[in-house]
This record gives sequence, C-alpha cells and structure tokens, in this order.
Amino acid sequence: MISPKKTVVQLEAYSPPTSGRENMLRLDFNENTIGCSPKIIDALKEIDANKLSVYPEYESFLQKLSGKLGLSPDKIVLTNGTDEAINQIMQTFVENGEEVIIPVPTFAMFKFYATIIGAKINEVFYNLDLSFPFEQVMNSITEKTKVVILVNPNNPTGTSISEKQIRDVLKKAKSKTSLVMIDEAYFEFYGKSSINLIKQFDNLIITRTFSKAYGLAGLRCGYIVSNKEIIANIRKTISPYSVNTIALLCASVALDDQKFVEQYVGEVIQNREIMKKQLSSLRVKVFPSSANFLICDFGEKCEEVYFKLKERGILVRNRTKDPLLKGCLRIGVGTRKQCEKVIFELKEIFGVKE
Amino acid sequence: MISPKKTVVQLEAYSPPTSGRENMLRLDFNENTIGCSPKIIDALKEIDANKLSVYPEYESFLQKLSGKLGLSPDKIVLTNGTDEAINQIMQTFVENGEEVIIPVPTFAMFKFYATIIGAKINEVFYNLDLSFPFEQVMNSITEKTKVVILVNPNNPTGTSISEKQIRDVLKKAKSKTSLVMIDEAYFEFYGKSSINLIKQFDNLIITRTFSKAYGLAGLRCGYIVSNKEIIANIRKTISPYSVNTIALLCASVALDDQKFVEQYVGEVIQNREIMKKQLSSLRVKVFPSSANFLICDFGEKCEEVYFKLKERGILVRNRTKDPLLKGCLRIGVGTRKQCEKVIFELKEIFGVKE
Repeated sequence: MISPKKTVVQLEAYSPPTSGRENMLRLDFNENTIGCSPKIIDALKEIDANKLSVYPEYESFLQKLSGKLGLSPDKIVLTNGTDEAINQIMQTFVENGEEVIIPVPTFAMFKFYATIIGAKINEVFYNLDLSFPFEQVMNSITEKTKVVILVNPNNPTGTSISEKQIRDVLKKAKSKTSLVMIDEAYFEFYGKSSINLIKQFDNLIITRTFSKAYGLAGLRCGYIVSNKEIIANIRKTISPYSVNTIALLCASVALDDQKFVEQYVGEVIQNREIMKKQLSSLRVKVFPSSANFLICDFGEKCEEVYFKLKERGILVRNRTKDPLLKGCLRIGVGTRKQCEKVIFELKEIFGVKE
Repeated sequence: MISPKKTVVQLEAYSPPTSGRENMLRLDFNENTIGCSPKIIDALKEIDANKLSVYPEYESFLQKLSGKLGLSPDKIVLTNGTDEAINQIMQTFVENGEEVIIPVPTFAMFKFYATIIGAKINEVFYNLDLSFPFEQVMNSITEKTKVVILVNPNNPTGTSISEKQIRDVLKKAKSKTSLVMIDEAYFEFYGKSSINLIKQFDNLIITRTFSKAYGLAGLRCGYIVSNKEIIANIRKTISPYSVNTIALLCASVALDDQKFVEQYVGEVIQNREIMKKQLSSLRVKVFPSSANFLICDFGEKCEEVYFKLKERGILVRNRTKDPLLKGCLRIGVGTRKQCEKVIFELKEIFGVKE
C-alpha cells in the first residue's frame, strides 16, 4: 500500500449522511425545509441540451451578483458550496505549520481542511452559555496566526457576534498580519452582515452560500467576497469551472426572487421564537439562536429523544459529542406546521398531556 | 496585503475562457458538439423543488455506476469534474517536495494542482512525432517519484499509450512505491481502458468524466476508480457533497442512454479520419489522434488561421505556446456537418478553389 500524506493518515473520516434522508422531515442539516423558489423549477424546464455540453460561463451571473452586493465582480469568486470556499482559502493562504484559530464547537469543515494542509489548529472554546468567546479569541491572535475563523451566526450553536467585536478581531488580526474569515452561511436568518467592512479591512474574507435560506443545498453554489488582491490570489488556485451551469442558472433565478427568500426567512424567525417558548415549556433548555436552528439540551434523554424522533419520521442532529454540547440536539426550524409536528411528537415522547 | 503561500505566489493565473462562447461553433474545448442526450432534458422537467433543497445523496447513483463498471462502490469516488479528481489525488498523497512526473504537453491542471501543493514537477517531453515518451518516462521513475501522470488518450496531442507500456510503467512505479494516475477523460473515443488493471496493480488510480463524450461538461461530474484502500484515503480528504444533485441525476440518465453516446462516439471517430484526410489534402500536417480532436500544424499561418476561423464563428484552441506544438491548433471533431464547415472555411482562408 502506498501511504497518503501524514496529515491524511491522522484525519478521521468525515461521513455525514449522504443517503436515506428522503421522505423524512429533515431538520438535521439546516436546509430550507420548503424547497427552493418554484421559479427555479420553471427555469429548469427551459434548459437546452447544448447548454449542458458546454463548460460553465460565469460572467453574466457574476455581474448580477455584483449588482446585488454592490461590489465589483473582481471582489467575488464563486465556489462549489462553502466547502470549496474554505478549502480554497486554506489552500491559497495557509502554509504547513501556520496557525488557524477556530472557535468551537463549529462547522466541521474548517478543522477538516486546516488539518489536510497541515495547519496548526488552535481551538478556542465558546463560553459555557454558548456566547462568542471574545476575550479568548483576542488573546489567541499572535504573530503566528494566519487565519481566524468566525462563523456568524455560528453553526451549531446559533451564536451571533456583534459588529463591535468583529471590528476588534479584525483590528487585532490586522496588526499581526492575520486574515479573518467570516462564514455567513446563515446570515439571512440573522439579518446582519460584515460585507461593508471589506472596504475598511484588507484582511477580511467573507463566505456565503445558496444552500440554506435560498433552498439550493443540492446545487452547491456559494461565493467568497473580499478585496481585489485576495480574490485574485484565490482565483489563482481554484478550478476555473468548479460551479456548474445549472447551479448558476438556479442561483440566478433565486437572486431574482428575493421575495421568496424574505418570506421564508421571516416565517422561520417567527417560528424560531415560538418553538423556543414551547420547548421551554417542556422544560428543555434552549440556547439563543440567530440562525434557522436551535440547540436544545435534553440532558440524559438526548439519545432517546433523537431515536424516538427518527422513528416518528423527524431527523434532527445529535451534537452531544461536540464540546460544550453534551446532551444537546440541534433542531432545524421550518414552517409553522413542521414546528408543530416536532412539538407534538416531543410531547408524545415526554408523555405530556395537553 | 497578506501574502498567499509561496507556491501560489509563483503560480501563473490559469484563465480559460468562461464567457463569450455561446453561438459559436465550439471546437476549442473537446466538448461533445451536439449536446447531451435528450432524455436528460426530459428528466430535468420532472425535478421537484424539495429535491434541490436537500444535500446530494450519492448511494443509488454509486450503485448504478458500480454495476456499469463491474466494480464495488467502495472502489469509486465521485468528483466535481476531473479537476477535483486531480486536486484530491494530489491533496491526499503528495507531500510538499515529493515528485510528480508529467509527460508534456498535456492538460494544464496536473501541473496546476501539483504546483499549489508544492510538489517537485518533473516534466518529460513527448517524442517529436507526439508519440508517448515511454523510455524517458521509465527512466524518470525513481524512489523520489510519488505520482506518474498518464493521460490516455492525451490532451492536446491525441496520443494513446499501449497496454504493454502502461503495464511496464505500473510495474516500475510499483517497485519504487509510486502511484500511477491515468486520466481517461477521452477513453470513449479510443475504446480501450486500463480499468481492468486495477485488480492487478495496487498503485493504479484512474479518472473518468461525463464532460466529454457524454456531453455534460457544464455539470462537472467525474469519478475516480482505484482499489479500496486508495479510495478510502481519497474519501477522507474530499468534500462529502462536491458533486451536485442535478449533475447526479443527469449522469444517471446518461448512463442509461448508452446508445446515444455510442452513436455520437462512432460518428466522431469516422469524422476524425475524414477530417484528417481533408486537412492533409490542404497540406496541413495532422498528427494521429485517438480522441475527439486533432493537432494540426499550420506553421507560420497558425495565428492567422486561428483568428480567421474565429471571425467565421469557429472556435479552435491555439496550442502554439505548448512544448512541441509550435504552429499548432487543436481542432475538435464533431458531426459531419460541423467538420465540413471547418474544411469549407479553411479552404476559403487558404484561397483553395474546389
């Protein structure tokens, strides 16, 4: 056997479910729970066979996205989901042995890609109440830091970071010539973005995705926003054709149908608060969330609730093995009806009578 | 400015055209020139909005592909085109400073990804007649070699490699614990594959794609085939969701419509020989090709012919800057009518009267 790189030998296999989720109520991957805009489905009916045979063309989509963001196209690069965005940022900037600061628990792919390239990973724990560990992150930034990862709001904790704290991290990082990458995969559910800070901070990189609020997780389309120089460097290392033609088409229609997303996001935010109350009334501890999911502490009943919900056709994510999240399930928030279903089944599981 | 990795600083930007090719006769990217199977277009009309909101599910497609290849699913990994396949192979196996042997001229992305990870690149030149440089490749394989790249048939030369030579390279590589990666992007037009050698050689990795004969370049779907151990290692480093839902759906329909591909491939092979004769009768030197394109030596007229074809709505690829290919254009072979159009315009450009 020919052995892989040293960093790969150490790597644990990351195997999220890639089958068997159909026909279930999927509240386990923070996806949009109602499907994408119907206008996208209409657009798919108009595709020509020749269009698929040709390598993807990005210019017109980039122009449209550029208009929506108010940033020139040379400050944007499209990515095959946020996974590729993270990978490319690591690939482009981080030398073997350089340090990446990752507040945890968080999305697994930061550590994943940092490990593959041989970065030194400095994990900083969120506070016990799952608020952002501002002081610890600030104190961790040194001359050795190459990238600080911020996820706003964070997955799986739902935590948001204030603009003041983000600015302070950016300033400190800049003084140490470190980059700050902010993953805004869930920003639509939070309502605040750091995109305007790109003009002020030349060490800021932001990632976005069409996988969550826009309901296009299956299509793998995201983008990186930063200043021209950083984007030019990332473009040097990225496959020229990583986002596919249909993903582009669908994302383009999605951008034109903002009403669809706004309506869905509005509904989710409302339901998040209702669901939080109802869970609390079942004596389940729920942490504050700025995203489309809730971290719910079921304590010792965690595994039991997880499996019983699954039996009843509801998928949620068991996060009990994450740091700070012992006993916790992450439950996605969808439509009112979907939330009611969750609460109904939880009451059944708990044996609570109305 | 925060500087990228050292290997990225050196990297030249690779910018193939990603716009402006519509409405032209596209013989510049070795794509299928008639579009994908119409059954794929029908399938796109049946997609449900919910399907797109969910992360891709691979199991059933892997099962189908596994059946077609006669290999168990744990010997296959899907990739976002051959680009991702190359990247993942480098990422998984090649440490900074290890050697990669690349016979040139060839597809740009081998050197691209090898450079990013900091491999030592050993370029071996094809023979002057563009045949495979067997002796030189054999002599280059040493203890320092981590991967030997073979492209069969090769792009842009169209060169094929005999099974005997492939076996010898595999044996020599095995004796030095080196991997051999064979890119079979164009194998449908050649008719021979090395896939059966996977059972005999545990150092063999093969890449394939739906971008060429199957007419799905826009969808970015390819796959890697090897033994279980190598595939398990590659799976450790690849994004779990790199191939998108619609690419899977289309590739699945494409696999079921083998007749479509066989017919197209048959036509291209026939037209390749006709076009070769016609080009020769115009006193253009044409090299042997086992793929869906021809390397044509226009000598000093190369640039002129390139631009004049473009004016007339025909895109071909100017390869004059490639090693050994001074004065050469690569012209894709499509349908009879498309070939006739090329010959007609060349006669006009050359002022040849019928």
